[in-house]
Amino acid sequence: MSVQKKLINDPLKVADELLEGLVEAYNGECRKVGTRSIVKNQIPDNKVALLVGGGAGHEPIYHGLVGRNLADGAACGDIFAAPPPNIVFEATEAVNRGNGVLYLYGNYAGDVMNFDIGAELAEDEDIDVRTVLINDDVCSAPPTQKGNRRGIAGLVPIVKLVGAASQMAPNLEELEKVAIKASLETRSVGVSMSPGSIPATGKPTFQIDEDKIGLGMGIHGEPGVGEIPMTTADELTPKMLDMIVKDFEDDEDVAPLTEGDDIVLVVNSLGATTMMECLICLRAAKDYFNSRGINIHDVVVGPLVTCQEMTGISFSVTRVDDVLKKFWNMPCQSVCFTKMSGRYGDI
Amino acid sequence: MSVQKKLINDPLKVADELLEGLVEAYNGECRKVGTRSIVKNQIPDNKVALLVGGGAGHEPIYHGLVGRNLADGAACGDIFAAPPPNIVFEATEAVNRGNGVLYLYGNYAGDVMNFDIGAELAEDEDIDVRTVLINDDVCSAPPTQKGNRRGIAGLVPIVKLVGAASQMAPNLEELEKVAIKASLETRSVGVSMSPGSIPATGKPTFQIDEDKIGLGMGIHGEPGVGEIPMTTADELTPKMLDMIVKDFEDDEDVAPLTEGDDIVLVVNSLGATTMMECLICLRAAKDYFNSRGINIHDVVVGPLVTCQEMTGISFSVTRVDDVLKKFWNMPCQSVCFTKMSGRYGDI
Repeated sequence: MSVQKKLINDPLKVADELLEGLVEAYNGECRKVGTRSIVKNQIPDNKVALLVGGGAGHEPIYHGLVGRNLADGAACGDIFAAPPPNIVFEATEAVNRGNGVLYLYGNYAGDVMNFDIGAELAEDEDIDVRTVLINDDVCSAPPTQKGNRRGIAGLVPIVKLVGAASQMAPNLEELEKVAIKASLETRSVGVSMSPGSIPATGKPTFQIDEDKIGLGMGIHGEPGVGEIPMTTADELTPKMLDMIVKDFEDDEDVAPLTEGDDIVLVVNSLGATTMMECLICLRAAKDYFNSRGINIHDVVVGPLVTCQEMTGISFSVTRVDDVLKKFWNMPCQSVCFTKMSGRYGDI
Repeated sequence: MSVQKKLINDPLKVADELLEGLVEAYNGECRKVGTRSIVKNQIPDNKVALLVGGGAGHEPIYHGLVGRNLADGAACGDIFAAPPPNIVFEATEAVNRGNGVLYLYGNYAGDVMNFDIGAELAEDEDIDVRTVLINDDVCSAPPTQKGNRRGIAGLVPIVKLVGAASQMAPNLEELEKVAIKASLETRSVGVSMSPGSIPATGKPTFQIDEDKIGLGMGIHGEPGVGEIPMTTADELTPKMLDMIVKDFEDDEDVAPLTEGDDIVLVVNSLGATTMMECLICLRAAKDYFNSRGINIHDVVVGPLVTCQEMTGISFSVTRVDDVLKKFWNMPCQSVCFTKMSGRYGDI
């Protein structure tokens, strides 16, 4: 098994050094705070703050989602590791403007534990904290155990929507409501065809046969719902989207996805899967939703939530009503995701 | 040698199908025209038009650079193949608004031949065409043979600048001048650590030893200036940037890059190289320019000019004076590259 060549320095300093680079990429909009947090330089007084975070190694998320009309800060862990409580607390203090802080992050046990302790430390300092977990990964648990689901690429539209909402949220409770709604209306399904590698060792995160696809594999190589034979973009895409549509149907907390609904569609590359492939799958996805009368309000495509050079793709669907559409259509800017106002079509 | 698993359908229809997906990604801003061109839906009357183009397989360029304050259209070839003259002509007719069309594309023999014939066909229809070639790849020929250099990731800042300029250019000659200047002020150096693969076969585009880096390799795996031992981000980055700085020095057509100059810096992944690595290299690049008193006006980082899942990185430097800075600071939106107004820092 060959070792992946990586352009790094000390393997143990990868997370710290990438964060320094990220600050440069933000070019004045964000700064490093404390041990390993990224925080916006200009957060208005009294703003309800939005904090995201998670392990490094999945760039451009999570710390790439801080920015204009997006998150106010990110607590950054080491490679594939949750940020420890002190980092969560440092980030919380830095983004807090006296009106509370919403934690919005992917549902992983380590993150939940550390963010929760961070929240306790913050409460000790009279900073109000609420938490909304992102658990969009349909394949990681059945609908009846939705609370156990992992957060994957659906976090991008969710953070985008909540970041926009946070610009005008009157208080923490109202922002929490938007986050719960955005999270509830978001579903993702991913596949992987080959592993990424661990930066410190160059070794692959998992193994898979050359003629197989891992259906529902997580962004750390967590097992999904099974392996299926390698197939074409046009066969795989409806199979994946069927799982999303079925999950909207099976979940009693939301309405089924039906004709006339508007969605934001994310086609995410897990790393080494090319934009070429993403676009071919997007073409198939458009046919899928067209034939069901579901309107794609906007599309995001590219490597947003990655696991190093893993190959694979995920689809995320967020149903947007008029309120969420208003938040979606606001411009935003960050290293991970930037959009001008409106949709691409509105110029 | 294992075959790369790709999410495609018919290997011979990859370019056509990705273009259909691209139209969806543009979500109303662009449409497909003729055989295989992407053209903006709204091009103002009398606008001096900007046409880019080249082979597919390098997504999100070239056809991802059509959009707001960017190119008006792109002529798209097959995978790693120049667009044939009829496609260039169809795109030219579609973007033309009576004030001429500037062709701006990477300097590859096939592209030059086909765009030139396309230009002749256009001239037969009384459409004024001028051509500016992008040849930013410092390693592909010595300064005395600059005309033989290939175009690589420097095309992103160049198209961005010229696309902005095209919104207000009074005529084709003036836009050509901006393009010549932007091209002259742009230099790139790339390296590759492992090959991409040809979509139709899954076979690698070249071979390289596990402990080597190809210095100056092209985006199709063209040989560079030699192989060097695999090294760290902090050792490789100054070595690459030295080549860019030296080339500014050696080129009699431009001033040396000196203290007080402003630059736009692009850190490009050739595909599978992670954002993590790009950010670590960006950190080293910032140190490099800081120590020389060269001011990084803005930074772009990510997989913009790729060769499938090739690993490798390139740096591009564009020196911007007040005029180019004005064009740079304009917002732009496309599938490849989007920025809000100003720099990240200006909010």
